[in-house]
Amino acid sequence: MPYVKIQIAKTGVTAEQKAELIRGATDLLHRVLDKPPSSTYVVIEEIDTDNWGVGGESLTVRRARTSST
Amino acid sequence: MPYVKIQIAKTGVTAEQKAELIRGATDLLHRVLDKPPSSTYVVIEEIDTDNWGVGGESLTVRRARTSST
Amino acid sequence: MPYVKIQIAKTGVTAEQKAELIRGATDLLHRVLDKPPSSTYVVIEEIDTDNWGVGGESLTVRRARTSST
Amino acid sequence: MPYVKIQIAKTGVTAEQKAELIRGATDLLHRVLDKPPSSTYVVIEEIDTDNWGVGGESLTVRRARTSST
Amino acid sequence: MPYVKIQIAKTGVTAEQKAELIRGATDLLHRVLDKPPSSTYVVIEEIDTDNWGVGGESLTVRRARTSST
Amino acid sequence: MPYVKIQIAKTGVTAEQKAELIRGATDLLHRVLDKPPSSTYVVIEEIDTDNWGVGGESLTVRRARTSST
Repeated sequence: MPYVKIQIAKTGVTAEQKAELIRGATDLLHRVLDKPPSSTYVVIEEIDTDNWGVGGESLTVRRARTSST
Repeated sequence: MPYVKIQIAKTGVTAEQKAELIRGATDLLHRVLDKPPSSTYVVIEEIDTDNWGVGGESLTVRRARTSST
Repeated sequence: MPYVKIQIAKTGVTAEQKAELIRGATDLLHRVLDKPPSSTYVVIEEIDTDNWGVGGESLTVRRARTSST
Repeated sequence: MPYVKIQIAKTGVTAEQKAELIRGATDLLHRVLDKPPSSTYVVIEEIDTDNWGVGGESLTVRRARTSST
Repeated sequence: MPYVKIQIAKTGVTAEQKAELIRGATDLLHRVLDKPPSSTYVVIEEIDTDNWGVGGESLTVRRARTSST
Repeated sequence: MPYVKIQIAKTGVTAEQKAELIRGATDLLHRVLDKPPSSTYVVIEEIDTDNWGVGGESLTVRRARTSST
């Protein structure tokens, strides 16, 4: 009964890409651990770039800094 | 100091229903483990149906398919 | 397809109590949101008292302090 | 490779405050466990006050009750 | 900077299988969203079968019941 | 009512270090958002190095490779 959570920055991921993530994660659990696809839950959480930090700064700030150089 | 997270698909759950979930989860911890209600946190996370997968497909797709048959 | 996570301090919760938590949370989702019990996942996470903090101190310290007074 | 999740009620937290939370959590892991800041992820999740319960009631209800007295 | 959590029942998953899950989830994020593998964190949480519920009962009970028929 | 989860690799973190993480995270929420310390929960989750992946490999493999060079 696997539960997979995929947390990514909210940057215009399309419904098609989400569908691929869901299919891919479900297949992975099936292939590696023989879990029936019907038993696997996948939840995608999209996080605002103000709310995701790495290296001590938000992705909003990091990307503005990177793209301005 | 229990922490309960309830993750559900976002499908028009009302404030009254959320209040019932909060009350019910708090009562459950009180009844089974004698936790004081004031110490129990309950967080409800509503997930877009594009972002919740089961059986390798999103709930959006699954429900469209089911209701069209 | 609800997913419920119950996080509690690890303090000798029995298998019977865990079974009650699972049953109770599943019933709650069924009663309030009409979710079929077979679709509800419940995960109980037991956290060591050194690893759970409230009021800026661990539960280990808090309980030692409380019981010694 | 620490991962820190900060879950708070959604009540008008500013981008500056979020930046301080990210910086502070990253510094904490660096100071206490010597983790390089570039390896620490911080995710801030803001929860609607209808969706956060304590003492068996939502923060929405609790705050209305408190402020009306 | 994706973060993937894979929660499964604790039933003797090997280090090789865990390595495959990590590789597979990292590849998935790379293939679908073009995320550099070095930026993807994968965390596998193994849950005791007493602590995982579905259909209102623990996996421990469910499996004992199923295998005894 | 903040809830902070700190997920780190399980590598001999001491009770003193955990206490510092708890104190530091609680102070951070107090300083930045004026949250009363008594309302902040901090949960530290230690993850086995086989179960934590980055760059498509587990921390176990990564560290063995790094230290052998």
